[in-house]
Amino acid sequence: MPLIRPVTRDDFPQWLPLWQGYNKFYGRSGETALPSEITQSTWGRFFDAYEPVHALVAEENGQVIGIVHYLFHRNTISIAPTCYLQDLFTAESARGKGVGRKLIEAVYEQARRAGCPRVYWHTHHTNATAMLLYDKVAQHSGFVVYRKDL
Amino acid sequence: MPLIRPVTRDDFPQWLPLWQGYNKFYGRSGETALPSEITQSTWGRFFDAYEPVHALVAEENGQVIGIVHYLFHRNTISIAPTCYLQDLFTAESARGKGVGRKLIEAVYEQARRAGCPRVYWHTHHTNATAMLLYDKVAQHSGFVVYRKDL
Amino acid sequence: MPLIRPVTRDDFPQWLPLWQGYNKFYGRSGETALPSEITQSTWGRFFDAYEPVHALVAEENGQVIGIVHYLFHRNTISIAPTCYLQDLFTAESARGKGVGRKLIEAVYEQARRAGCPRVYWHTHHTNATAMLLYDKVAQHSGFVVYRKDL
Amino acid sequence: MPLIRPVTRDDFPQWLPLWQGYNKFYGRSGETALPSEITQSTWGRFFDAYEPVHALVAEENGQVIGIVHYLFHRNTISIAPTCYLQDLFTAESARGKGVGRKLIEAVYEQARRAGCPRVYWHTHHTNATAMLLYDKVAQHSGFVVYRKDL
Repeated sequence: MPLIRPVTRDDFPQWLPLWQGYNKFYGRSGETALPSEITQSTWGRFFDAYEPVHALVAEENGQVIGIVHYLFHRNTISIAPTCYLQDLFTAESARGKGVGRKLIEAVYEQARRAGCPRVYWHTHHTNATAMLLYDKVAQHSGFVVYRKDL
Repeated sequence: MPLIRPVTRDDFPQWLPLWQGYNKFYGRSGETALPSEITQSTWGRFFDAYEPVHALVAEENGQVIGIVHYLFHRNTISIAPTCYLQDLFTAESARGKGVGRKLIEAVYEQARRAGCPRVYWHTHHTNATAMLLYDKVAQHSGFVVYRKDL
Repeated sequence: MPLIRPVTRDDFPQWLPLWQGYNKFYGRSGETALPSEITQSTWGRFFDAYEPVHALVAEENGQVIGIVHYLFHRNTISIAPTCYLQDLFTAESARGKGVGRKLIEAVYEQARRAGCPRVYWHTHHTNATAMLLYDKVAQHSGFVVYRKDL
Repeated sequence: MPLIRPVTRDDFPQWLPLWQGYNKFYGRSGETALPSEITQSTWGRFFDAYEPVHALVAEENGQVIGIVHYLFHRNTISIAPTCYLQDLFTAESARGKGVGRKLIEAVYEQARRAGCPRVYWHTHHTNATAMLLYDKVAQHSGFVVYRKDL
């Protein structure tokens, strides 16, 4: 089973293709690829003690095979912050082996230690494969996401 | 039409019943009411320059008839933060007059000034009345919310 | 008298030489100049609603003749944050006219509105000219600064 | 030698008298004592994953004999945050044994891991005993602190 651990600066070459794979899945590739400035900024925030933005990686045999990013933010209905699990991605060759589940559970553990009462995330309602897992480890809240791009 | 403005400390007596009305709508009343410590903490954060947690109110004839709370938080796919519109509530007597819409649009304006590329919020998929408005001013993203209470 | 107002993105060409002048005063010029990445990062934070980092400028006849940067941060002996006035600089041609004082007082006003009980800053003990002003508008606390570069 | 470790919620009864001893040293006792609301707020922030406010304790034979509080905040002349070591206190019975030094060095280690280029603190210029230690582990910067209470 893979080891789940906080990302380190040395992971960059292995983290990058997974981050790009994740972005491609959501249509951010080619002409619509995420600008590299954003990737640099996000990467830097994982190592900025002022920022509540964190990353864990799943490592097996020296290979990073999965990534998860989460951040803490304020919530008006609690004193403690809430934990937003924003990005989860597993290398194609490592799918179906419980890596995603282990990454999610590791975020739960970090949030628990941080005194955080809740972890949440968004997924597209058509993402049936992912929801098979999500329904096992979390609750489909019945809430939907509205957005306005400015 | 109501005036939309930032909340001030003097608004507390008028803000509180709207906040309680909002919480009641989501089942947080009576035995499951939000502890007053949380209300005090959230209220204090609106006036804490370190906290990216904000509130606007709609005022008409000296009465606060609507409230909206929003906060900025990090986002891994942008350099600028994202804006989460967490709470929106209008006094019952002031419904159907466009107050909610004005409050949402005022959040857009604040987010725009703040260089924020997106505002989002969550609503329960059964909240049909609210969605009539939301569908006019924003995009139903197709994303659903998963949660894990720790 | 100059107008004191929040910085805007359009001010960059006028803000930059003052920022560079300020850095030069503290020995950060030529080979020891501040890397431009830091200047870009700091400038961006003034417009990042998640960051409690702010700038005001003094403008006269369309010219920016002074700048002040301040930030809010936590303090263990208060619930409200403290306000750190980090940088203050006036164009050489505009010295001795009270611009620095107006900038400091404008920070006081911002801090007051933000519910912040204290503004503080650091100055080198040999900076006699500046201290003539500081002794008029604030209190020489008797505290000294220790530092460890890691 | 004592063990230096992050504070835990269970440490409260042992942390509190040291925190009060520290405040008393700075004249905050009796009628000028820190309100308990502030102590509760600061204590809570140590365990709030959104807050960059941290505490370490020195423990020996199950007793907490020293405390140090530090926080990360923005700095206009660096991309990474700076580390402010705000409070340091050792039980009277444990003085002169290097506990303060170990606590300071533990903060250096935390700041280093966090990618933070500098740790700083304030001390009163009459605090000769403390400065004997500070002069060994850090640099007397020559900067003095100005303050304005609003």
